[in-house]
Amino acid sequence: MPMKQFLSAHDVDSIDDLIDLARRHKRKPRNLEDLGYGKTIINLFFNPSLRTRISTEKAGLNLGFDVITYDASGGWNIEFETGAVMNLDTAEHVREAAGVLSQYCDILCVRSFPSLTDKEADYADRVMKSFVQYATVPVVSLESATRHPLQSLADCLTISEHSHRPRPKVVLTWAPHPRRLPQAVANSFAEWMVEWDKVDLTICNPEGFDLAPEFTAGAQVVHHQAEAFRGADFIYAKNWSSYDDYGATASLPDWIIDESKMALTNNAYFMHCLPVRRNVVVTDGVIESPRSLVLQQANNRTWAAQAVLGRMQTK
Amino acid sequence: MPMKQFLSAHDVDSIDDLIDLARRHKRKPRNLEDLGYGKTIINLFFNPSLRTRISTEKAGLNLGFDVITYDASGGWNIEFETGAVMNLDTAEHVREAAGVLSQYCDILCVRSFPSLTDKEADYADRVMKSFVQYATVPVVSLESATRHPLQSLADCLTISEHSHRPRPKVVLTWAPHPRRLPQAVANSFAEWMVEWDKVDLTICNPEGFDLAPEFTAGAQVVHHQAEAFRGADFIYAKNWSSYDDYGATASLPDWIIDESKMALTNNAYFMHCLPVRRNVVVTDGVIESPRSLVLQQANNRTWAAQAVLGRMQTK
Amino acid sequence: MPMKQFLSAHDVDSIDDLIDLARRHKRKPRNLEDLGYGKTIINLFFNPSLRTRISTEKAGLNLGFDVITYDASGGWNIEFETGAVMNLDTAEHVREAAGVLSQYCDILCVRSFPSLTDKEADYADRVMKSFVQYATVPVVSLESATRHPLQSLADCLTISEHSHRPRPKVVLTWAPHPRRLPQAVANSFAEWMVEWDKVDLTICNPEGFDLAPEFTAGAQVVHHQAEAFRGADFIYAKNWSSYDDYGATASLPDWIIDESKMALTNNAYFMHCLPVRRNVVVTDGVIESPRSLVLQQANNRTWAAQAVLGRMQTK
Repeated sequence: MPMKQFLSAHDVDSIDDLIDLARRHKRKPRNLEDLGYGKTIINLFFNPSLRTRISTEKAGLNLGFDVITYDASGGWNIEFETGAVMNLDTAEHVREAAGVLSQYCDILCVRSFPSLTDKEADYADRVMKSFVQYATVPVVSLESATRHPLQSLADCLTISEHSHRPRPKVVLTWAPHPRRLPQAVANSFAEWMVEWDKVDLTICNPEGFDLAPEFTAGAQVVHHQAEAFRGADFIYAKNWSSYDDYGATASLPDWIIDESKMALTNNAYFMHCLPVRRNVVVTDGVIESPRSLVLQQANNRTWAAQAVLGRMQTK
Repeated sequence: MPMKQFLSAHDVDSIDDLIDLARRHKRKPRNLEDLGYGKTIINLFFNPSLRTRISTEKAGLNLGFDVITYDASGGWNIEFETGAVMNLDTAEHVREAAGVLSQYCDILCVRSFPSLTDKEADYADRVMKSFVQYATVPVVSLESATRHPLQSLADCLTISEHSHRPRPKVVLTWAPHPRRLPQAVANSFAEWMVEWDKVDLTICNPEGFDLAPEFTAGAQVVHHQAEAFRGADFIYAKNWSSYDDYGATASLPDWIIDESKMALTNNAYFMHCLPVRRNVVVTDGVIESPRSLVLQQANNRTWAAQAVLGRMQTK
Repeated sequence: MPMKQFLSAHDVDSIDDLIDLARRHKRKPRNLEDLGYGKTIINLFFNPSLRTRISTEKAGLNLGFDVITYDASGGWNIEFETGAVMNLDTAEHVREAAGVLSQYCDILCVRSFPSLTDKEADYADRVMKSFVQYATVPVVSLESATRHPLQSLADCLTISEHSHRPRPKVVLTWAPHPRRLPQAVANSFAEWMVEWDKVDLTICNPEGFDLAPEFTAGAQVVHHQAEAFRGADFIYAKNWSSYDDYGATASLPDWIIDESKMALTNNAYFMHCLPVRRNVVVTDGVIESPRSLVLQQANNRTWAAQAVLGRMQTK
C-alpha cells in the first residue's frame, strides 16, 4: 500500500513486504528507473549526514527522481510556535517553509536531531511533526528527535539476510561514547524489532539508561551485558544518553563490546549503524571480524531508502 | 527572442510573452525536456538561498540541463578592481572567475547581495555587472544588489493568474522588519510593474524610505498606508532599508499588514516573496487567509525560472 | 588499459593515449554518455574546490554517471591511526569511511591537502593512501598532499594543443605569493612532464625552494629566472612553500612573472593552474596577453577528468 508518511514502523503495513521490496531493489537497482520520472525529492537536512544523505540520493536517482539536497544546518532558523511574533532569531515559520517546499517536490525528506535539553519538545518530535502537518506532500524521516526509521529498515533487511533460524535472539546493547547522543537509533531499532515480530529482542543498558517505555514494550530489558549476550545471534551496539535524566551521559568504559563478550554469544553477528568510535564502543577485533555486518548495514541503507521512496504516495 | 542576459525587466522583449511561456511550462513542465541536452547551468551563490536555489535547479532539470550549484558564500573572495595587487584577502580576480566558469557552463546564474554600506558599489551592481562583463556565456541574475528579476517575473505571473479586471491597483507597501534588508525585491517589483504596464502601481512607504527614483518613475508614491490601500486589488508587502540614508532602518511596528488595513482594499490579494516574519511584517490572519498568494508566488518561481532559462541564448 | 587508481603519472600506461582520449571527449563530450549508466561517482572534498569540483562533476555527467559531491571540509574528523582509542576528536575511522563510501559508489574521488606542518605524514600521502587501502572501488585523486594529477593531465593536453615543435622547452617557475601553499601542483607538473617525455623541463626556483628530488629527477633545476626563461616555449608559474624548511615561505616579489621576463622567452605561452593573485604571481599584462593559456587549462580540466573517469576499472 502506498504510504502517506514514513516516520516510524507504525506507518508500514508489512515490514516483511518492505524488506522484500528492498531486496528486489538490491538485486536490480534500476528496475523501476522510470517510477520517479518528472518528480522531485527534496532532502532537507537540519543536521549533518553522510550515510543517510548519500544513500537517499542514490535511492532517489535509481528510481528516476530528480533529487535536491538542501543543507539547512548552517542556520536557517525556523519558527514552530503558532502565533509567534517573529522579531528575534527565526526568519521563517514552518507553515511557509513546509508549504513552499511542498510546491517544489513530490516527497519531502527531513532530518532533525533532538536538542537533548527540551525533553518535551524532542519527544513531541516537533520539527518532524510540524513538517508533516504543514506539508502537502508525503514526508519521510531521515532521522528525527526520536527515531531513525530508514536505519531500522536497513537493519531489518541486514538481519533477514543473516538469520538462519526462527526467532533469533537480537540484543540491543548500550555502549560507551565520549559525547551525549540522541536515543533515536536505539528507540527506532527497538520499535522495529518489536513490530517486525521475527526476532526476540533483549535490550541491555546501564541502570538509568532505560529507553522510553513506548519503544521497549515487548522487549526484555536487562542491566548486565553478560546476561544479555548469552545465546545472542545478533549484537547491535549503540550509545545513547539518558532518557530519564534527560540527555545525561556516563563514563562506563567497561560496557565496550569486545571479544570476550562476543564469546558469550551464539557466534553472534556484530552490528552498528556507524559512525563508530573504535576501541571505545567496540574493539578493532570485533568490528573487523568476519561476523561484523557494519558495512552491509551501510550498503542496505540504499535499498531500504529505495523501497520506502518507491512506496510513497505521490501526486 | 533569445536573451543574452537576464538582469532586469529591460532585458525582456515582452513580459507578456515571458509570462505566457511560464504558464505553458507550469501546465507541462517536461514539454521541452530536451532543450538543455548536453548543456550545463551553473548557479553561483555568494549569499544563502532556499526558494531561488531549488526553483532554479528544478527549472533547469525540467529543461534537460545539467545543473551545478556552487555555494561561494563561505568566503571565496573575489577581486573586482582592475589593476589590483592581490596580496591581501582576495584570491581570484573576477576576470578569471567569470572566464573559468564560462568554460564549464552554457548559462551562468549569479546571486550577490548588496553590502548596504557602499551605496555606490551596490547601485553600480558591481558583482553582477563584472560577471556579465567577463563571462562569455549568458548571465542570469538570481538577485543582485539592486534587483531580483526572477522573483518579479514570478510575481507578474501570479498577478496575471489572479487579475480579473483591467489595470488592477497594485500596492507595494513597506512593512516592518527587525533587520536591515536590501532594496532589491522592492526595486525590482516596481520596475517590472511599470515596465509590464498592465497594472496601476502605488508605492507606499514611510518618509525617508523612498526607493531610488530610477525604479519608481511611473508609479505613484504615497506615505500613508490607509491612502494607498483604498481600492487596492493586490497588496505586495516588503521591508527595505533606506536608500537615501543608505542602509538605515526604522522601528515602525504600525506599518504591519493586518486585517483592518486589508479591509480598506477591494478584497485584495496579499503577496510577499518570503521568507516572512509573521506578526511583524504581516499578521497570521492575513497570511493565512484565502486571499494570501504567498505559496503560489513560491510555486511560480519555478515556472518563471524555466521560462527565462529556456530563452537564454546558448551556444 | 583500465586503471585501478589514479594518483600519479605512474598509474598511467601511456600519457599520450590519455591525452588523445581527452581530446576526443573535448570534440564530442557526450560520445560515451552511456558508459556510466547505473554507476555512481562520489567526490569527497576535505578542502575547498571550484575548478576541480565543477570539472569533475561535468566529466562524470558527460559519461552518464550519477555524481554525488560530498563536502567534508566542515569537520568530519577521520581517524587514520591503526588501533587508536577514539575518545577524542575523531568520529570515524578511515576503514569505515572508505568501506562505507565504497558501498555507495563505483569510483571514489578524494581531495585532501597537506598539513604543511607534518612533512612525514604529508609525503606519505596518508589520507589518500588510506582511502586507497580501505576502499574496494578505484580511487581518483582530486589533489593530494603531494600531487594534483588531474591538473597535470590537463596541462599536458594544453601543452600538446599549443606545441608546434619537437621537445619544446617548458619552464616551471616559482612565483611569489602571500600565503603558504602546498607543493602538490608543482610536484605533479614536474612528475608528468618528466614521465611524458615530450618536452624538456627546466625548474626554476629560489635557493631553499627545491622540490623533493623524487619529482625533479630528469629535469634541470636552476635558481635564476633569466637563465631559465631564455628560449622557453612554455612558462608555467606556481608558488610553493619550501620542502626543505617544510612549509616555510619567503617574500620575493622580484620573482613575479612580468613582460620583461616573458620577453626573454621564445614567445612563450603563459600557464597557471588558477586561482592566481594578479600582480603578485603574474602581471595583468602577461595573464591577459594572447599567449596566456590559463582559461584553456581550466577548460581542459573537464576533458582530462572525463578521460580518467572513463578509464577507471569499475565493477
